Amino acid sequence: MALDAGVLTELESIVGREHVRHEQGEVAPYARDATPLFSSPPDAVVFPARTEEVAAVLRLATARRIPVVPRGAGSNLCAATVPLQGGILLVLTRMDRVLEISTEELLVRAEPGATTATVAEAAAAQGLLFAPDPGSRTVSTVGGNVATCAGGLRGLKYGVTRNYVLGLEVVLPTGEVIRTGGRLWKDVAGYDLTRLLTGSEGTLGVITEVTLALLPMPATASTGVAYFSSLAEAGRAVTQVLAHGVVPATLEFLDRTCIGAVEDYARLGLRGDAGALLLFGDDGEPDAVERNLTRMGELCADEGALEVTVAKEIAQSEALLAARRCALPALSRLDTLTVLEDVTVPRPRLAEMVDRIEAVAARHDLLIGTFGHAGDGNLHPTAVVDVRDPAAADRTHAAFAEIFAAALELDGTITGEHGVGAAKLPYLRDRLGDDQMALLRRIKTAFDPAGILNPGKTGS
Amino acid sequence: MALDAGVLTELESIVGREHVRHEQGEVAPYARDATPLFSSPPDAVVFPARTEEVAAVLRLATARRIPVVPRGAGSNLCAATVPLQGGILLVLTRMDRVLEISTEELLVRAEPGATTATVAEAAAAQGLLFAPDPGSRTVSTVGGNVATCAGGLRGLKYGVTRNYVLGLEVVLPTGEVIRTGGRLWKDVAGYDLTRLLTGSEGTLGVITEVTLALLPMPATASTGVAYFSSLAEAGRAVTQVLAHGVVPATLEFLDRTCIGAVEDYARLGLRGDAGALLLFGDDGEPDAVERNLTRMGELCADEGALEVTVAKEIAQSEALLAARRCALPALSRLDTLTVLEDVTVPRPRLAEMVDRIEAVAARHDLLIGTFGHAGDGNLHPTAVVDVRDPAAADRTHAAFAEIFAAALELDGTITGEHGVGAAKLPYLRDRLGDDQMALLRRIKTAFDPAGILNPGKTGS
Repeated sequence: MALDAGVLTELESIVGREHVRHEQGEVAPYARDATPLFSSPPDAVVFPARTEEVAAVLRLATARRIPVVPRGAGSNLCAATVPLQGGILLVLTRMDRVLEISTEELLVRAEPGATTATVAEAAAAQGLLFAPDPGSRTVSTVGGNVATCAGGLRGLKYGVTRNYVLGLEVVLPTGEVIRTGGRLWKDVAGYDLTRLLTGSEGTLGVITEVTLALLPMPATASTGVAYFSSLAEAGRAVTQVLAHGVVPATLEFLDRTCIGAVEDYARLGLRGDAGALLLFGDDGEPDAVERNLTRMGELCADEGALEVTVAKEIAQSEALLAARRCALPALSRLDTLTVLEDVTVPRPRLAEMVDRIEAVAARHDLLIGTFGHAGDGNLHPTAVVDVRDPAAADRTHAAFAEIFAAALELDGTITGEHGVGAAKLPYLRDRLGDDQMALLRRIKTAFDPAGILNPGKTGS
Repeated sequence: MALDAGVLTELESIVGREHVRHEQGEVAPYARDATPLFSSPPDAVVFPARTEEVAAVLRLATARRIPVVPRGAGSNLCAATVPLQGGILLVLTRMDRVLEISTEELLVRAEPGATTATVAEAAAAQGLLFAPDPGSRTVSTVGGNVATCAGGLRGLKYGVTRNYVLGLEVVLPTGEVIRTGGRLWKDVAGYDLTRLLTGSEGTLGVITEVTLALLPMPATASTGVAYFSSLAEAGRAVTQVLAHGVVPATLEFLDRTCIGAVEDYARLGLRGDAGALLLFGDDGEPDAVERNLTRMGELCADEGALEVTVAKEIAQSEALLAARRCALPALSRLDTLTVLEDVTVPRPRLAEMVDRIEAVAARHDLLIGTFGHAGDGNLHPTAVVDVRDPAAADRTHAAFAEIFAAALELDGTITGEHGVGAAKLPYLRDRLGDDQMALLRRIKTAFDPAGILNPGKTGS
């Protein structure tokens, strides 16, 4: 759809002329987010600065039946912020202030466009930890974190974004501004809209302020690495760690393909003969961290690890973590198109799932490396596709359809932390069933009777 | 309303004749839950044994527009399970099996009628901790815990029930059976119905199975007690504990009235000259627990504690906790009617809130003792009312209306862990505002188009 001149004039009167873009060259960069293969330009990009401006835009959009897609940095990996039906892309990056940090109440209040790293650093400056730690933290916004219920590397010990959202200010598609929750951990007054909106991916309301819980900053942190012949052995080591009462901050793995890619890329001195690499780490009081690292190293050795190294100092700990952090850039370098996916299976079935992924990759003649969060069963199978091969995209889609089906067969899910967006919507029914899909649509309508907010995504 | 004979026959054919009660003498005991002053008998009490029976009852009820109130033990304190409009009381206590405990996946699957204690003990037998710890644990059911998002004594370190619900099987009022979530910590496929249903107090669906996360059992636990001249001092000590990076398992307080009542009741040797008693405790590895207890004791002393005792052994630790556990029975003993309320304020405002409560009590000539969870700002002001005084109930209602208003003024909430039910519904609008109340009603309709499920409560 094209917006008529009257709508553009109204938008300009709401946010100021310099904060509305509608020329083709201006809107084209906003046709995509970080998801490959999805692209659709908005008719206008609008940058509000205040909640009242967001409310005015939404009232206008509902009155005129114009699609609105809210977004922050657009770093999501499921095409959640691609404006499939055009309309208005509402970019919240001007609303980027950290409004308050309370050391007494252990919370931060921020506008949605503040980056995760900005919030985490503001908290750290007061001796506090913002626990959610998505890989995209330097660019992703806290509003986007909440909208996608972002996960990250510390999920097992610390949980995901959902566990830290105390309260939200949200503008409904019809323009009302509501405040859900507040500053409290214990509050059961009314339905839990705070959690319902967390992970709703901009389909139910536009988040204009977040109140997030913080924790005291752990005194120290350390990391170790273990190599195994196979992922099955690494998986058994993870089970043993938890069986021995250790719930560590870090339990990350790389498969054989990822180890090779990282070594080619970064020359970290990783073993080339290993079938799996397990990073384990913890934070807290120094003696507890040392005890847990030692125990985890011993349990890895007991399960037949080829080699175990525990960092002696922070610099070494950072060097070990580098292997995990550069898994994606290392894979991306192999070719020009990288499709990073996201499934979760019950922890004991992790090795089985990676076997399934390897079989799917072989069947479709694809290179798929898998890394992820061994502690919570969250895997990131990543296909590396030659873009000069026009059939490769089709094979990739076919392969991932089989991978999602395999995850469901193993009592898992089609997305652990990236979200549904447009990319996973075709698979959502397989996960939820017809009755639950119908219920999601009725809930969507309860929030958005005109269906203007992020159409073509969950609830549509 | 009275149920016609045809409906009773249908109910009997669904669950078996012996599992339907409808004689006045049979239904009268189900007119109340644990909430004083609320009473309304159901027309029939139905005890299903299987999910399909629940579904059949709900289909019948929707078709015939018969109110249905689901409940477990009926131990809630907000009249959430009083059948205000009669109809069917659906009691789920026959569905009381623990279906599975997975030590590898750290979870328990159970039917809703299993008691909290049964689930906790089954987990403990496998070396696992079910963290939510409501005071009612020996009688309350896990289905009721989830339906009310029960809190408890370990909220600060471990969070509330919401943080442990992985998945639910739920029957919608129209009879569809859906499964939300599953066995995973990381799962963002679709709106977070698991959390929306948690705390929805039987107004959106009937929970027929729960999957709950467990934790490794802490190796040890210990407790200390500190007396202060005033609650303000105790509050400052709590702030200091958190400022020093300790997030303990236990931070409970009793005010002067409660200390006196407990001492009269149980003769524990509590100090009569104290204005506040603070219980502090932690669990985990022995050295960490000892360090945290010592540190908390020192911080209490620094804030001017009259006396600090740290338990030397488990028996002493239990003895110290006894003071907190018998606060309610001690108050109840003073007279025959005890109204136990539940508000939360931001942690730094706890002493201010208790001052407000004392002023309200004096103004209305009431005895109100306050105890609760200092760590998360959750207070239980408890009015002890002479039932021979007919005006006392009115004064109690008037006093609590002022107490709820005071909590909201201090950025708090009208219920931290007990729920809204019928008792708090008159105050919910003050907390949420008109727009959010309207949204709750639309969400309710999305689940329950005929409005049969727990009418007269949240969403009605």
